[in-house]
Amino acid sequence: MPSDDDLMKKLVSLCKRLGFVFPSGDIYGGLQSAWDYGPLGVELKRNIEAAWWDAMVRTRENVFGVDTAIITHPDTWKASGHVEHFHDPLVDCLDCKARWRADQTADGRCPDCGGRLTEPRDFGLMFRTHMGAVEDEAAVVYLRPETCQSIFTNFRNITNALRPRLPFGVAQIGKAFRNEITARNFVFRSREFEQMEMEFFCRGEEAPRWMEYWISERLSWYGSIGIRSGNLRLREHSKEELAHYAAGCTDIEYAFPFSPGGFGELEGIANRTDFDLRAHMAVSGQNLEYIDQAGNEKLIPHVVETSGGVGRTFLAVLLDAYFEDVIEGRDRVVLRLAPALAPVKIAVLPLSRKLEEGAARVASMLRPRWKVDFDVTGSIGKRYRRQDETGTPYCVTFDFDSLEDSAVTIRERDSLAQVRVSLDRLVEAFRDLFDKGWGAVAG
Amino acid sequence: MPSDDDLMKKLVSLCKRLGFVFPSGDIYGGLQSAWDYGPLGVELKRNIEAAWWDAMVRTRENVFGVDTAIITHPDTWKASGHVEHFHDPLVDCLDCKARWRADQTADGRCPDCGGRLTEPRDFGLMFRTHMGAVEDEAAVVYLRPETCQSIFTNFRNITNALRPRLPFGVAQIGKAFRNEITARNFVFRSREFEQMEMEFFCRGEEAPRWMEYWISERLSWYGSIGIRSGNLRLREHSKEELAHYAAGCTDIEYAFPFSPGGFGELEGIANRTDFDLRAHMAVSGQNLEYIDQAGNEKLIPHVVETSGGVGRTFLAVLLDAYFEDVIEGRDRVVLRLAPALAPVKIAVLPLSRKLEEGAARVASMLRPRWKVDFDVTGSIGKRYRRQDETGTPYCVTFDFDSLEDSAVTIRERDSLAQVRVSLDRLVEAFRDLFDKGWGAVAG
Repeated sequence: MPSDDDLMKKLVSLCKRLGFVFPSGDIYGGLQSAWDYGPLGVELKRNIEAAWWDAMVRTRENVFGVDTAIITHPDTWKASGHVEHFHDPLVDCLDCKARWRADQTADGRCPDCGGRLTEPRDFGLMFRTHMGAVEDEAAVVYLRPETCQSIFTNFRNITNALRPRLPFGVAQIGKAFRNEITARNFVFRSREFEQMEMEFFCRGEEAPRWMEYWISERLSWYGSIGIRSGNLRLREHSKEELAHYAAGCTDIEYAFPFSPGGFGELEGIANRTDFDLRAHMAVSGQNLEYIDQAGNEKLIPHVVETSGGVGRTFLAVLLDAYFEDVIEGRDRVVLRLAPALAPVKIAVLPLSRKLEEGAARVASMLRPRWKVDFDVTGSIGKRYRRQDETGTPYCVTFDFDSLEDSAVTIRERDSLAQVRVSLDRLVEAFRDLFDKGWGAVAG
Repeated sequence: MPSDDDLMKKLVSLCKRLGFVFPSGDIYGGLQSAWDYGPLGVELKRNIEAAWWDAMVRTRENVFGVDTAIITHPDTWKASGHVEHFHDPLVDCLDCKARWRADQTADGRCPDCGGRLTEPRDFGLMFRTHMGAVEDEAAVVYLRPETCQSIFTNFRNITNALRPRLPFGVAQIGKAFRNEITARNFVFRSREFEQMEMEFFCRGEEAPRWMEYWISERLSWYGSIGIRSGNLRLREHSKEELAHYAAGCTDIEYAFPFSPGGFGELEGIANRTDFDLRAHMAVSGQNLEYIDQAGNEKLIPHVVETSGGVGRTFLAVLLDAYFEDVIEGRDRVVLRLAPALAPVKIAVLPLSRKLEEGAARVASMLRPRWKVDFDVTGSIGKRYRRQDETGTPYCVTFDFDSLEDSAVTIRERDSLAQVRVSLDRLVEAFRDLFDKGWGAVAG
């Protein structure tokens, strides 16, 4: 296996070469720390998001989804404290005019030219723009720096519509934007990123118990999408480190190769107390109390939040799945992605160009249900290796015998095991494979 | 059925009351023409997007997906012509200072106070913001006004990664932003909106044939998600009306109740020729030719685009599904949504509070596969009506007999037909219902 440094370089290169992730605006020299998901990347990303939505919303009785606007009413960010507090202190070099984050210039001199620096000045991390025809202060709006606030501002509309019993959660997947000075490490930290957040509303005294519950649930989820437990750890925030709104926070960390100390944040689970609902009540003058169905109890719920990033999960999944090995005397790169996450589920490969027609019929049988690749170019060994580094769990080979016995060979990516399956039960075999794993078919 | 005016009012009200769509920033007085999708709306929206992705990308051999950044390299919009041309001419009233689109003030006087107006001035329709620490011209970036351009700028990276044979398509679902002066008509026209676009690259001489193909495919798709053909029509653009990049364009229109003439644009299918790739070649200085695998042929492909909106499809689906009828002597509102689009697939209803435990077990059986609602509040008739206006295709009633015969009643939303199904084949029955329809189970 490659060293940590090499691993990141190899992964970024593989992502561009195969079509997982491209530098955004590449033909114009690129836009710093902005990324576009390519044909394979978008499928992996959609599969991660679907796995999260299934686990957090669709299969749960008491968690509901929303999808809210990116450009948000500006009072939202007054209430949340972002307008006042979401700043980085920056300094300018008086000589070369370079701009730095104050904490990166510990000795008071410009890291580039050694020149003298100005006093630190606050620089807002929210992207500002103007809505409507007139560019004045009244029309200033912000791109949301986090998705959770619009869950709080919609709290009353949601409870009016659903009349849910406490406790219940509201979840969202969506873009957020932060004008960071130091975006870096591929999709780990970019100015435009996608969050998967859930706010769980409960009675204040029950919040510590729900913290434990959600830490455990979220940790299990990363296991369920195939991330090895040895590469995950929990880290509880110290009192000094806690955000102003939080009574407690635990990060789920992954062994990112670039992280100082060997681990970096994948997701935060925080007890936000009743801070946010109270803040929006104060600024809006509206009543955001929860009233139970019998009308006997009124309270401001407390909130346990689970906040993860799509890009970070995407990166952790790829890092965890990346392996180099040697098969049949040749080097191989293989992405051991969980079948549910793999961008392509099945590749259909005719052994020879002469078998293209029969193989195409097999691909058509499978395509209504699964994402199928059909590849005729190059030797069969080369095509297997291409599918291995794409992470495709199963290859179907259509050979000359297939014309006689109406059967094909399924090859499994990780074990290289093969099994011959008749065409009339191929769809059923794949349904078993994706539901129950290799044992169900190879038996 | 309600009149056209009433229908829109009723639908907007139903959307807020049940949790399909909320006015964004409602507790702060709302942000004009901005909308948040609530718990039911987000499920309907996700189902529409999944149906589009399945039909356009997943089941096709030669269409690939991407998911690109919203904040795009600014040269993209120089090449596309947006920086220079994407403007509305505006006029100001010299007396009351109101601002108007010039074409809304045909007689040269302020529509509000009758005051004199300034000469028209161009107002850019793109949202501008600044990236990085310094607010100067160099750091100006735009929120993309359309998703298609980043398909063109990624053309070379995509063809390098996949080596696709012509013709092939690249598709994307994503947000776009236009600072329109006259956003209106609910989610039909909002400043932040979501596009579903596909650019199909082909030889120039084949573009007219592919136009016909995609017009037909897209029209079928709207039928497949349940929109009645009588409410759809095709409208070919006249020469005078064509955008500067287009050699031809046909709109798929829907009978939106607010549209002048009775129909409004749902989707456009356009022959964009080789305009976009040539424009990006000219500005970037990069070669965006397509080279076939044998290396014998080099050409700039032409593009047939299909460009639809998630919000418009969402609105058309709801309008088309909205019915008022009378059952058992009571008024009913029912959303006759296609089962694949319905936010909730199955509602499980215990006939009495005493049956809650048994009914909850039934809900648990179904929840791993489908989005299930569990409702115990109010009379059974009231609960049926609540599910009808939510668009839930099937209700499962757990009654006192269920304790004896281990069976439940399935009720179909539109026909009100009922069938008794034993619990040990309930999952199978629903699999048949969603695959093959009511006939497969009611037999």
